[in-house]
Formats: sequence, C-alpha cells, structure tokens
Amino acid sequence: MKELTVATSFDAVSALRQVGPARFEADLHPEWTIVGKPNGGYQLAVLARAAAALSGHPHVVAASAHYLRAPVPGLVTVEVDVLRSGRGASQLRARLGQDGEARVEALLTMSTLDPTGAAYWDAGLPGPGNLAWDACRRLVPRTPDGSRVPIMEQVEVRLDPECEGFIRGRPSGRGELRGWLALPDGEAFTPASLLFAVDAFPPATFDLEFTGWVPTLELTAYVRALPAPGPVRILQRAQLLGARRVDEACFVWDSTGRLLAQATQLAAIRLG
Amino acid sequence: MKELTVATSFDAVSALRQVGPARFEADLHPEWTIVGKPNGGYQLAVLARAAAALSGHPHVVAASAHYLRAPVPGLVTVEVDVLRSGRGASQLRARLGQDGEARVEALLTMSTLDPTGAAYWDAGLPGPGNLAWDACRRLVPRTPDGSRVPIMEQVEVRLDPECEGFIRGRPSGRGELRGWLALPDGEAFTPASLLFAVDAFPPATFDLEFTGWVPTLELTAYVRALPAPGPVRILQRAQLLGARRVDEACFVWDSTGRLLAQATQLAAIRLG
Repeated sequence: MKELTVATSFDAVSALRQVGPARFEADLHPEWTIVGKPNGGYQLAVLARAAAALSGHPHVVAASAHYLRAPVPGLVTVEVDVLRSGRGASQLRARLGQDGEARVEALLTMSTLDPTGAAYWDAGLPGPGNLAWDACRRLVPRTPDGSRVPIMEQVEVRLDPECEGFIRGRPSGRGELRGWLALPDGEAFTPASLLFAVDAFPPATFDLEFTGWVPTLELTAYVRALPAPGPVRILQRAQLLGARRVDEACFVWDSTGRLLAQATQLAAIRLG
Repeated sequence: MKELTVATSFDAVSALRQVGPARFEADLHPEWTIVGKPNGGYQLAVLARAAAALSGHPHVVAASAHYLRAPVPGLVTVEVDVLRSGRGASQLRARLGQDGEARVEALLTMSTLDPTGAAYWDAGLPGPGNLAWDACRRLVPRTPDGSRVPIMEQVEVRLDPECEGFIRGRPSGRGELRGWLALPDGEAFTPASLLFAVDAFPPATFDLEFTGWVPTLELTAYVRALPAPGPVRILQRAQLLGARRVDEACFVWDSTGRLLAQATQLAAIRLG
C-alpha cells in the first residue's frame, strides 16, 4: 500500500491506501483544483486506480462517471464492487465519497491493452494535426477574469496560438481547443491518468464565450491504446450548447499520432 | 402499474410492473431482438423508465450503461437506487437482472427538458442533412448473410441509398450510416425511447466490412431536447476500429432538424 506524499506527480496525487477488502482512502490534492474543486477527470482516475487494484485486468478501457456533489480537497473514500469478472474483461462500480456522502459514482470496464497493436481503421476520427509542442504556448494559470487555476501550475497545458484568443477576450467562435498536455516532470501517461487527460483542458466553450466554472455532470472515456512516453496532444471541442448544458468531445493522441483516448462530457454552463 | 401486452409498441415492450419500493419487472420482447439478443438501447430505455418512476424529474438527460451479460427475451428484474435527489436534477443507478444475475448496470441523470428551448450554439455538431424520408429505402429485416433481424420488422429503419451498399456487399468505406427511424404505428419518441434510437441502427462498421454481431460494451447517451412527433433522423458513424473494439458516435434529430440525442458506444467486433 502506497502512502500519499507531498510530491505532486500524478502518481502521488492519485495514490490510494487500501483500508478494507473493497475500500480505499485517497487525498485529493489542494493544488490539483480549479476554483477550489478537484478536476473531474482526476477524480475518475482515482476510481480507475481503485478498480485496477481489485480487477484481474490492469487497464481501464471504458469509464463512465456521474458527478453528484463536488468534493473539496482532502480525504476521500473509495468503495469498489466487482460486477462481473470475465476472461477478457471485468466490470466494476466505484464510488468516491467524502464526509459520508457519495460524490462521484462510476462504472468501469477493465481489460488488457496490447502495447503493439495499431488501429485497423481510424478514418472516422479527427486528425491529430501536426502542431508541434514548441509552436504552442503554455497556458498561464489564470482564468481570463484573473482567478488562479492551481492545477495549471502542476500540469503544462500548451495551446495552439490559433485557439488561445479567449485569454485576451477574443475567442475564435469555433468552440475548439487544440494543444498539448504534460504531467509534472515528464511523468509518462497511463490508462488511469488518460482519464485525467480527457478533462484537463479548459472548457472548449471558452473559445465561444468566457464563463465561470463549467462543472461536469457526466464524463465517459474510452482508452484505446497504451501511450508512448511524453506529453500528449489534445483536441477538446464543444458540440451543442443549449438550455444551460453543453456537451464536449475530447481526443487524446501520443507524440507518434496514435489515438489513446476519447471522451464525451455533459456539463452545466451559465449560457444558453 | 401497467401490464405488458402482446402489442409491440415501444411503450408496451418497455413497460414495467412495480413489485417493490425500488424494484420492477419487465418482459423483454422476443421480437425486439437481433440474433436472439434484445437490443442494448432497448434495455437502457427500460432502465430509464424505472429511474423516471422513482425520480422527481421526468426526463432522462444522461445515461451510461455497461453491459455485463446479454439477457435473453423474457422476464427481467430492474432495481433502482436513488444516488442524489436535487432541485434541478437527480441521479440514479439502475440494474437489469435475469435469473439472479446482473445483465446491465447503468447510471442515469434525470431532469426536466424544456419543450420550447432552442440551441444557443450548435456549430460543433454534424448537420442533420436534408435527406427526405421518401428518398430513403426501408432496411430489409435480414443481415447480408441472411439472418433474420426481428427488430427490423418492428421498427422502420430507412437508409440513405448512398450508405446501404453493404446490403449488396459493397460498403462505401466511410463507416457512416444516415437515415430515418420510426417506431411502430407512428408512435412518438420520448426521452426514454431516444435511448433506444441511439442504438437502433445497424453497426456503422457494416459500411466498412460486414461482420456478425457487434455487441455493445458501453453506451452513453445525452438527451438534449423533447422530440416533435414522428420519425427521427439518425447519423451513426464509426470513429476508430482496432484491437477488436470499435467506437461509434450517434446523433438523432427530429423532423424539424432539432438535435434530440447524441451517444457514443464502445463495442466488440471480429475485425482489427
């Protein structure tokens, strides 16, 4: 059992202590937050690590979370139920709680990803583009209204100069953010931390109109391949905004252009 | 409490009998099947109807299902847990079981959809196109290898002639099916039956290469608006096929061109 340390690597801030046969504790790090709230993908990654500990399969391949109440940084409990344990895959339910209340409930399908397999057909995906790391600029850890975004001091989000106009109050109107994401100190991504990656970028709606917090209601991610070491390329885009909800799609590629993960989320927004 | 009848309307084949405070029974109809298996969206719709019965909110807005073991047609049980009941939305967990075994586990967020609201921004969506109902041909209730697909005798799936080449062994290679869907006897769609609609089309991979059954592993759907009466337009498309799994995205519009629902699914496939 691993103890949480003050180090801010993803591995450390998502570490679990097993405290029962299907029960864990974790400490959500106060710096891995946006306006005081731990990032939703980070919370789901913690659940995936707990599921992996109880599954015969090491890699999360599908995860769906419904967010009930945002936890605050600090101690959380994780409870896991194995729903089915099969030869090729297993399915689990996991719940993140704080102060005796459920905060996130998730379903996870675990399997074993092949480190060598290439896609058989991927023409239905948007392309990763050829945007270089150096051609992107690091996102400053402040929202356009000046709020500090501590998590952006932990990870490095770099945006295509064509879609960072929102920082200066000039969103492009395309509802699309492209760029790169690196974990602290060049830490390699894993299937679990890819669940953080699909929710790491600012809301793609910032490229339409700036708003405050855009809390995730539901997040579903599929992990399709094991990442090459190093930072990942990300495309985050909004699809439809209406009735104060927006859905966004996210695609994550490694530096070789291999699609690693894809996700959709439904979020609440003060627009529409 | 409604009794199942032999009528094959969606309302009838997804009807529930409440048998306890949070427990229901339903009969999965033998004709709403593909190779003897009840359609995955149909199963999720049954869970959404059970969730609606126990929620203070009438409409499913987000639903995520992980499929554990395919049930056979006939008696199933549905158990529902309310996870959180809020003012604007409630979240529930629902499980479909058969013969004492869990078959589908789902998380659902319920709310109240506004019958009048229009999208504030939807430029991130593919368009509904202007394909007319009459320009599409009804899909014959047989797979290309001659198997009967009973559900296609219940509902009417009509495909754009440009993407029905797979029927004659000539898929277009785009991995995309467009067309229309109607319930029996012009029955109007509801938020619950839209969860069936997002899984009603043949696999979009038929437009790449024909295979046998493509069982859904995970399905997540968002319902964004209340439908106008009548059939719905559907776009089902594959994104990436590899390592014997494929993800597909689905978009559903009503006849006025309003986006009603969108979904992604991860499925197993004997290709890649």
